[in-house]
Amino acid sequence: MTKKKQTKVAAKKADGVVKVALLGFGTVGSSVAKVLAESKFPGIALTHVYNRGVERKRSSAAAKFVPSTAVWTENIDDVLKSNVDVVIELMGGINPVEGWLKKAIASGKHVVTANKQLIAYRGVSLQKLAAQHGVQLVYGAAVAGGVPVIPGIRQGLGGDKVVRLSGIVNGTCNYILSRMEAGAEYATVLKDAQGLGYAEANPSADVDGFDARAKLCILSRIALHAELNPDEVATQTISNVEAVDFVYAKELNCTIRQVSRAQVEGAVVHARVAPMLVPLSSPMAWSHGTQNMVVTSGKFGGDVVFSGHGAGGEPTAVAVVSDLLAVSQGAKAVELPVRKRQVTGEFLAPHYLRFVVDDKPGIVSSIAGALAKVGANIDSLLQRPGYPKHKLPFVVTTEPCLTGTIERAMKSIGKLDCMLEKPLTLQILAAEDKAE
Amino acid sequence: MTKKKQTKVAAKKADGVVKVALLGFGTVGSSVAKVLAESKFPGIALTHVYNRGVERKRSSAAAKFVPSTAVWTENIDDVLKSNVDVVIELMGGINPVEGWLKKAIASGKHVVTANKQLIAYRGVSLQKLAAQHGVQLVYGAAVAGGVPVIPGIRQGLGGDKVVRLSGIVNGTCNYILSRMEAGAEYATVLKDAQGLGYAEANPSADVDGFDARAKLCILSRIALHAELNPDEVATQTISNVEAVDFVYAKELNCTIRQVSRAQVEGAVVHARVAPMLVPLSSPMAWSHGTQNMVVTSGKFGGDVVFSGHGAGGEPTAVAVVSDLLAVSQGAKAVELPVRKRQVTGEFLAPHYLRFVVDDKPGIVSSIAGALAKVGANIDSLLQRPGYPKHKLPFVVTTEPCLTGTIERAMKSIGKLDCMLEKPLTLQILAAEDKAE
Repeated sequence: MTKKKQTKVAAKKADGVVKVALLGFGTVGSSVAKVLAESKFPGIALTHVYNRGVERKRSSAAAKFVPSTAVWTENIDDVLKSNVDVVIELMGGINPVEGWLKKAIASGKHVVTANKQLIAYRGVSLQKLAAQHGVQLVYGAAVAGGVPVIPGIRQGLGGDKVVRLSGIVNGTCNYILSRMEAGAEYATVLKDAQGLGYAEANPSADVDGFDARAKLCILSRIALHAELNPDEVATQTISNVEAVDFVYAKELNCTIRQVSRAQVEGAVVHARVAPMLVPLSSPMAWSHGTQNMVVTSGKFGGDVVFSGHGAGGEPTAVAVVSDLLAVSQGAKAVELPVRKRQVTGEFLAPHYLRFVVDDKPGIVSSIAGALAKVGANIDSLLQRPGYPKHKLPFVVTTEPCLTGTIERAMKSIGKLDCMLEKPLTLQILAAEDKAE
Repeated sequence: MTKKKQTKVAAKKADGVVKVALLGFGTVGSSVAKVLAESKFPGIALTHVYNRGVERKRSSAAAKFVPSTAVWTENIDDVLKSNVDVVIELMGGINPVEGWLKKAIASGKHVVTANKQLIAYRGVSLQKLAAQHGVQLVYGAAVAGGVPVIPGIRQGLGGDKVVRLSGIVNGTCNYILSRMEAGAEYATVLKDAQGLGYAEANPSADVDGFDARAKLCILSRIALHAELNPDEVATQTISNVEAVDFVYAKELNCTIRQVSRAQVEGAVVHARVAPMLVPLSSPMAWSHGTQNMVVTSGKFGGDVVFSGHGAGGEPTAVAVVSDLLAVSQGAKAVELPVRKRQVTGEFLAPHYLRFVVDDKPGIVSSIAGALAKVGANIDSLLQRPGYPKHKLPFVVTTEPCLTGTIERAMKSIGKLDCMLEKPLTLQILAAEDKAE
């Protein structure tokens, strides 16, 4: 801690102005330009804007927020070989951005980025490189946009031993699931989300959990000081959650959210991104629409909730500009040692199992038998009236058991003749995850 | 921004160890010692403990968390004249602590404090002194204990323009009011709170809003960049909120919380600490027991919610130790210019007016007349059955009007013969304060 190389303060140039380049002038990039133009922080100047097809961007309405003296370019070398002090990267993806940022760092430029995939996969090596060159790499915008989860945890919870975190960190899934909670069907809501620009034409990164997984890995690094390989973190799609599941969830005083969880147990981190049943009394259930929420649980400080707008141009720009201010002032984040950790997707938790069957005598007995065989105890059996016998949805909940145990049982249950759909397995978030 | 004196990194001594003195070994102080002992952050050593009657503290159970080499003293000069790098102040109050900390700062010691009154009244001048001496003054524990509101706002919302904040920052009041929400009477709950150690024998600082007011002023400085004189901020006691008010609040889809609000309008800050009606759908209503919650509203980022344990030894110790880590690593907070602001207690808001009357014809007409005279429009009139005619509580709500306007009307209404108690006026928190 004491022998660390002193980080450069960004404002090191003779003219006392921190020169800033924007890589990417889309929704977030133009919002960053807007916030800078309206807030007029002294000593900060936007000097370069890089984007493919830059002339189109230059003639867009948002270009009015960029100082007339700024250089617009589609040649990255114009930025990398310039004298800018800080590079703000809002392109996303790992290639070619990683190479560019390595060059920027090597030439003494600080980096502010909102790139979750890059930071999840390459954050540790980039951070090391930045330390070698005495510059900062900051990424408060990579998780939960305008909600200051990363700076809040780094500067405010360093003194705790955070042992668990649960987050709603994908606004698209939260929008879809909270609309479904209000009665809509998955396909309808997905279409609406695409129309509103919340979901991509190929929604897989959001609905299958890959976006949230990258964020969970970043949060695990910051809060649990655990370095996880994102590819090893289990994900489960929200795309086979159906309207009927919200009906049964409500009967269990729950709703359904895409939850990203990580929990330290010795040298292992239990981590999973999946739709889960969340008690209506839990902070997780408060989060509606595109809101994000992160709950950390510390040994000394207990549960802390952060919540707000996780996406969108201006909220994300707030995180980017806040990071830029910190870098400009030489206000470093607290750094604590991070360790590589083994990951498992196993959680000891009660489970929600939903079946759709062509109802015949003996089904419940077969399911109960399969569960008994793996040692899983049934906690409740729910069958609401009003559904046709030949396509009957019903639900079994179990007492706490391991994810793998349940999956083994569900594999054999799924093979029963009467099963019309692949049964759905959802973890039920325990009462311990309830605030206070 | 660019010519600022470089702040010293605490770990400046030859042995590379940051030496720490604790002033105050009560609940929080002993928890700080515990967290440091259990977490074993490298390069940090607790070397001095100051407390009055120190021998009693030294023989307490918590003393086991203090290294055997540490100096225990009741002579403050043993700390001030020592070579400690960081002084952690947990005594509270302004005198004599202010003088001690000035001496500590002048002799090059960093200061970490949880002292809300000191920071509310003297924070700006102490900060100036610290900057002159190139040391840090940090106080993340002064508001909302273990909830990283101060570091979260400083490092994560510097890029936004926060225009409004609402907080539940006094755990004692929140405990009392959320117990009353569940049906208990004020006097009973206050007694319980005193028994549990949540409330002092003289509960005035908590229930009359002075504790929350100091915190509101600190939050205004951090989030709104507005320096307020705490003595000028309006407060209203929670002690005349009665069980019946929760009955009527519920009828209005609300509950009652002690809310601390501040809102920027041009060069003026509207600020008030008072029991208010809070929509059940608002984050403010989620907060139960001794939980704290702060909601900031930014021009660019919208609403951000921070919530968790605002008091208690270990949560507060988390904030203190997090600040200590930041100081030890030379991780400064982002600093933005703060301006002195005029304060007004006026809010344009709907109001809840509760009367207890000896019921006679003409009362409603008198009240309506007094309200009409000041131009306040009645929004609803609520009178629940089941109360005796000779001691009848009933409620009027108004459309949005200024606090002062309502107060003028209530003064004349209070003089009506039929009034058995001083009528109660509560601001109703508007829907704009609801999280999406």
